This record gives sequence, structure tokens and C-alpha cells, in this order.
Amino acid sequence: MRDVAIIGVGDTKFGELWDRSFREIGIEAGLEALEDAGITGQQIDALFIGNMSAGKFIEQEHVAALVADYSGLSPRHIPAYRIEAAGACGAAALACAHMSVSSGTYNIVVVGGAEKMTDVGDTEAAEILSATADQEWESVFGATFASLYAMMARRHMHEYGTTREQMAAVAVKNHKNGALNPSAQYQREINPGLVLGAPPVAEPLGLFDCAPLSDGGAAVVLCPLDIAKKFTDTPIKIAGYGQASDTLALHDRRDITTMDATVLAARRALHNAKLATKDVDLAEVHDNFTITEIIAIEDLGFFEKGKGGPASEEGRTALNAEVSINTSGGLKARGQPVGATGLAQVVEVFRQLQGDCGDRQVDGAEIGLTHSLGGTGASSVVHIFRRAD
Amino acid sequence: MRDVAIIGVGDTKFGELWDRSFREIGIEAGLEALEDAGITGQQIDALFIGNMSAGKFIEQEHVAALVADYSGLSPRHIPAYRIEAAGACGAAALACAHMSVSSGTYNIVVVGGAEKMTDVGDTEAAEILSATADQEWESVFGATFASLYAMMARRHMHEYGTTREQMAAVAVKNHKNGALNPSAQYQREINPGLVLGAPPVAEPLGLFDCAPLSDGGAAVVLCPLDIAKKFTDTPIKIAGYGQASDTLALHDRRDITTMDATVLAARRALHNAKLATKDVDLAEVHDNFTITEIIAIEDLGFFEKGKGGPASEEGRTALNAEVSINTSGGLKARGQPVGATGLAQVVEVFRQLQGDCGDRQVDGAEIGLTHSLGGTGASSVVHIFRRAD
Repeated sequence: MRDVAIIGVGDTKFGELWDRSFREIGIEAGLEALEDAGITGQQIDALFIGNMSAGKFIEQEHVAALVADYSGLSPRHIPAYRIEAAGACGAAALACAHMSVSSGTYNIVVVGGAEKMTDVGDTEAAEILSATADQEWESVFGATFASLYAMMARRHMHEYGTTREQMAAVAVKNHKNGALNPSAQYQREINPGLVLGAPPVAEPLGLFDCAPLSDGGAAVVLCPLDIAKKFTDTPIKIAGYGQASDTLALHDRRDITTMDATVLAARRALHNAKLATKDVDLAEVHDNFTITEIIAIEDLGFFEKGKGGPASEEGRTALNAEVSINTSGGLKARGQPVGATGLAQVVEVFRQLQGDCGDRQVDGAEIGLTHSLGGTGASSVVHIFRRAD
Repeated sequence: MRDVAIIGVGDTKFGELWDRSFREIGIEAGLEALEDAGITGQQIDALFIGNMSAGKFIEQEHVAALVADYSGLSPRHIPAYRIEAAGACGAAALACAHMSVSSGTYNIVVVGGAEKMTDVGDTEAAEILSATADQEWESVFGATFASLYAMMARRHMHEYGTTREQMAAVAVKNHKNGALNPSAQYQREINPGLVLGAPPVAEPLGLFDCAPLSDGGAAVVLCPLDIAKKFTDTPIKIAGYGQASDTLALHDRRDITTMDATVLAARRALHNAKLATKDVDLAEVHDNFTITEIIAIEDLGFFEKGKGGPASEEGRTALNAEVSINTSGGLKARGQPVGATGLAQVVEVFRQLQGDCGDRQVDGAEIGLTHSLGGTGASSVVHIFRRAD
């Protein structure tokens, strides 16, 4: 199996991009990644696209071929695959692309993710997101995505004494990081009072505990590690990868304060990379809700179960603290265009490991981790990256 | 890169399966494949699911994790990926699964495809299918899937003198084969008069030129070729694979009587397999409309461009004629549950190469080909299989 490296990345600003269509967003991110890698479309062997619900958001399926087409690649007829694993689709697309290169099937591959979510109303968007939970046992009875995560939050508060203030600290920290990221949807700091006083969405989660609906795209370019130096002085190796699934419905889980899929995906990725959690300098974790980041930093092994809330409030996950979590601003402040999110995490880790993050740079960053969730944790994907120069 | 073999297959009967849900259909096919391969769920390393539009047909995204869950695999938390490439999604899922095994990432992998299309009305189903064409340039102006293929048919008639009778011969032949396949949706023969006299759908295509809307599932089990004999005396090797894309919109194509994506996918697959079209004993080709089979057998190289119509009418594609095309009954008679279709083709070729097809057996079948299309040909996937015993 060949080692694989990332040699270039690109992204759009995330936000309500009403002046651009899905295809334009996808192409903008892809072209930036090609330019960053110093390659042209002529060199691409295949395209992998992460996208959750273009069929419902913009009435367009078959989006991998669409992006190949509108990128001007149709004369080359390159293979184009769309991968979906709900909110983890960008990360799952990276996994499939990785296997396509490690197998020797393709050499240079672009992995892109995009979602256009703001062309439908908020209620319709909530319904679309809820279609990633169990339709027959959850969504059909009116359980929304936020309400399912609210149940996890309530139980986490009950079991471990996690507080609203601790959850608010996650939002405050991620907005602080987002304020330093020109790609972020929200580039301003907020204070705990704003989070705690915000209107409830599904109690105990308020408006500022929730990631926004966003439009955006992100892309990365892969090639075999042994030729990566031809393209960049600082290739980033994909050192480890783990993916795991779980029951779609929350009520079938052993425990709703732990995501077993994350625990296993992390274990698989770390084993693969021959590393331990303590080796990781920075991590982009899935914070679609503030409680989700608290659960993730526990399940990934950064903190003991039940200690994620206090760790967040004590600033141990801040930029250049014990472990830098969501330096990009995370889903909360950078934005959450679902198909792009898992790849935007990779874009951030790539830039951090290349030392290219300016005011939000993690000092001496050598090893980074990304963590992406689908649904309420029925899919979890963890990747580990390290400098390979 | 490791060689990969298929060691077991399963399918449901295709049809209007109103008594069964999407998840039940998927699991039925998967369990049959496991039984056929002589393995248990404990041995599966990963799951790849081909599905086009569960988000729209049954309001459920995240179907790969769903199938893992309802197959009882959640305690093992296996990785689960959904692949979409419109009508070619089952074949594209096989391609991704193949790379996952050839790379050494996984050993035993199940690839399943399923679609539940009859829970929505016919008009809504037509709209969902049309979302695989170019939404901004075709579907939004009312171009339906059938009308786009009707334009291809008209042009093929104009360029090559192809006739309605020749197209009807495709439907008659596929129903004749379907009558011999217990998995087929339609198991009765029809005559040319019925096809020619049927109500028009989009002229020149009538009702019997069109594949039906169907529910159904199909699944195959993959493993490295070098351990395949542990599971079956007659493993079937995946000898070649090619995938290609094209413009989504028909008006951007160089020629609408040829699908360049098919020409290239076939060339790549045959090159890969070190074989020529003339070596192929049987082929399952994408016949969502009768004209599509005529175009496919030309583009795959079985007949010269423009000669597919006469070849069909002269019986050269009948069971045990020059090349046996769509012995399963094809999409026309076996049925077209989109996500399952590409894998149902593989199920048929596997059974043929194992000599297990009874009255519809191709004599001395050694090499088989499958051909699957997405949209109006913006994705095309070709696989080549051969006996490996």
C-alpha cells in the first residue's frame, strides 16, 4: 500500500453565498487547490466529491460528474465519484480518494466538498438535516437534529455535571479562533453572556450553541508520498485513518454521552499512524453543537470522559493551550456547509502544519487530527496528518 | 495492487415491493450474498452502498450507516460508505470497494445497492430521475429524463436509419430473457406489436421502450483473489475496470448518438483486463430505454456505430447468439431500482460465469462485462469479470 500525501488545498469563504451557485462554489475551491499544488486540470486522474444533500437543497443529484464538467474537465472524461456519509461525507470522500491512490489505481486525485444550504428556508433545511437521523424511528415522529443533540447534552449534564457555562465556553473559544480566520463565516468574538442569553433552539441548546447553515466549498489534492516533493517542499502525509459506524437511532445506543463510533475511529486511526492522542498538536473536531465538541474531545482521548466541559471552560483547548481545538473556528464559527466541512478541517490542518496560519498559528505544529461526524454519530471519521518534509 | 475476486452474490426479486421497506430490501440482498459466500457478518471489514436518491424517495440520507445498523453490524462499528453517480451508483460503489481491497485497506467487503422508488407517485419519481440531468440547463426547463433520451433516439434514427422496429426488438429480447429469470420484475414475453402500439412517453419512445420504476436490492462480496478459494471453488475475478465522465447537459456533447464516457470507460476496462471486446461472452448493459441498449452495444465495440439497431433486430444479441446481451432481462424486464441496478448486473454475470443460470445460461461463459450509466451518460462505468478457477 502506497503512502499518500496532500500537496495543495483550497476553500471558499463560508457563509450565505447568495451570489454564487453550488457549481461555482465547488469550482472556486477546486481551482484554488490546484493552484496551491501547482498543477493543472490536465494532471488530475480522478475526482471525489463529498456532498450530503444536493438532491434536496438544489434539486441536483450526480454532482461529482457536474463538478468535473463545470471545472472544464469533461474533455478528459475523468472518473468522478460522490461519497455521502451525512455530515462526515467530506471526510469519507477523502478516505475513498486515499484508497484510490494507495491502491495505485490513480496518482493525482482531487477531493472536493461543497454544499449550498441557504437556497431553501430554515425549516426545510432543518428537515433535510434530520434526514440523516433514523427516518422510521426518529425523524418521522418530529425529532429534529437539534433535539437529538439536546438529549445528549441533557444526559451529559446529568451524568457528569456539565454546565451551560462550559458549553458556552466552546462557542466563545471557537468564535475567538474564527475571528482570526479569513475563511470563517463569523469573524467576530462573542462573550458568554450572549451565548447564555440567546433564544433556545432545543433546550438546553440555544442559538449560539448551534453551528449555522452555510454555503461553501473546500478541496485538497492528493498524490503518492514518494512524488509529493515534486509539487511542494512541505507535503503533509496522511498518517492514519479510521472510520466507524453506529446505530442510526440514539435509543439503540449503549450510552448517548459517548459516541462509540468516534472512540473506535480514533483508535483505528492512531493505531494506523502509530501515534497516541498525546502526540497530537491540534485537532479540528465536529462541533455542530457545543456539546458535540465536549463529547468529541473526550471520545478522542484528549480528556477523560466527563472532563470535557471543565477542560473547555478552563481554556485547555484554546489556541496554543494543551491541545489547540478548532483553530479554524470550527463548524460553529467557520461555518457548516455539510459536504465541505470535513475537507475544510483538512484544509485548516494542512495550513497549520505548513505554518501558514498567521495570528492563529499553533506553535511548532507537527501532528494534526480531523474528526467528522455523520448524523448523531452513526458515522465517524478520523484522519491524522503529519509533516513529511 | 492486489487482485480482487467476487465470492458471493445476492438479490431480491425486483418489482413494486410495497410490503417491504428500503432497509429490509437492502438487508435481504446482503444476507443472501453472505450466505452465498459462506461468511458471517463477523467477517466483514467494510460496507459500500450504491444508492441514488433515498433522500428524496424515502426522506432518508445516511443509508450506508443505516444498512450496517439494520444488518446487525452496529456492534462491530464497521466503516460504511454510500457512493452516488446517478444510475451508475451501484457500479461506482463496486469500483470504490474494489480499490479498498486492492489497496490492502480491507479484506472482506460487502457492496450493496438498493432503491425504493414506488413509495412516491410517478410524476414525483420522474422529477427525481430528472435531477441527474443538468438542473440549471435541462431539468429546470422541464426536460424530463425520457425526453432527453428521446432526443438521442431521434438523432440516432436520423443519422443511421435506426427504426422503431429495431428498438422494439430490444424490448422483446429483454422480456424473453426476463421470463427466464426468477429475480425479474416482468417474467413474461411480449411481442413487437405491443411495443409499437404502446402509448408514447416521449416520442419516439413508448411505454415499452422504457424501463420501469422498481424497488429492489442486490449485493456482492469481495475479497483478495489469493484467498478467494477458501470461500468458493469458482471465484470470479474482477479483471478490469473503467469509469469516465462527460458533460451533464446533452447540448454540450460533441455527438448525442455516441456516449463518449462509455467508449472511454470500455477502453480503460479492456486495457486493464488485457482483453478485447470480441473476447466477451456476455454483457449486461444499461437499457433504461431501448435506444440506450442500441447505443451501448455500439459504444462498447460489439457492433459498429449505426449497426446496433439492425444487429438487435437480426437477433445477434439474443441468448447464445454472437454476444448475449442482458440475459437477466436488463433494466427493461428485470427492473430498474436505480441503486441496485449496477450490482444486479454483476450478480447476473457472476451467476452466468459460475454456470448457474439454468434455461438462460450462456454456453461456456468465461468472460462477462457490465456497463452502467449515470444520467444521460455523464457517468459510465464498465467492469470485466472472468472465471478464476
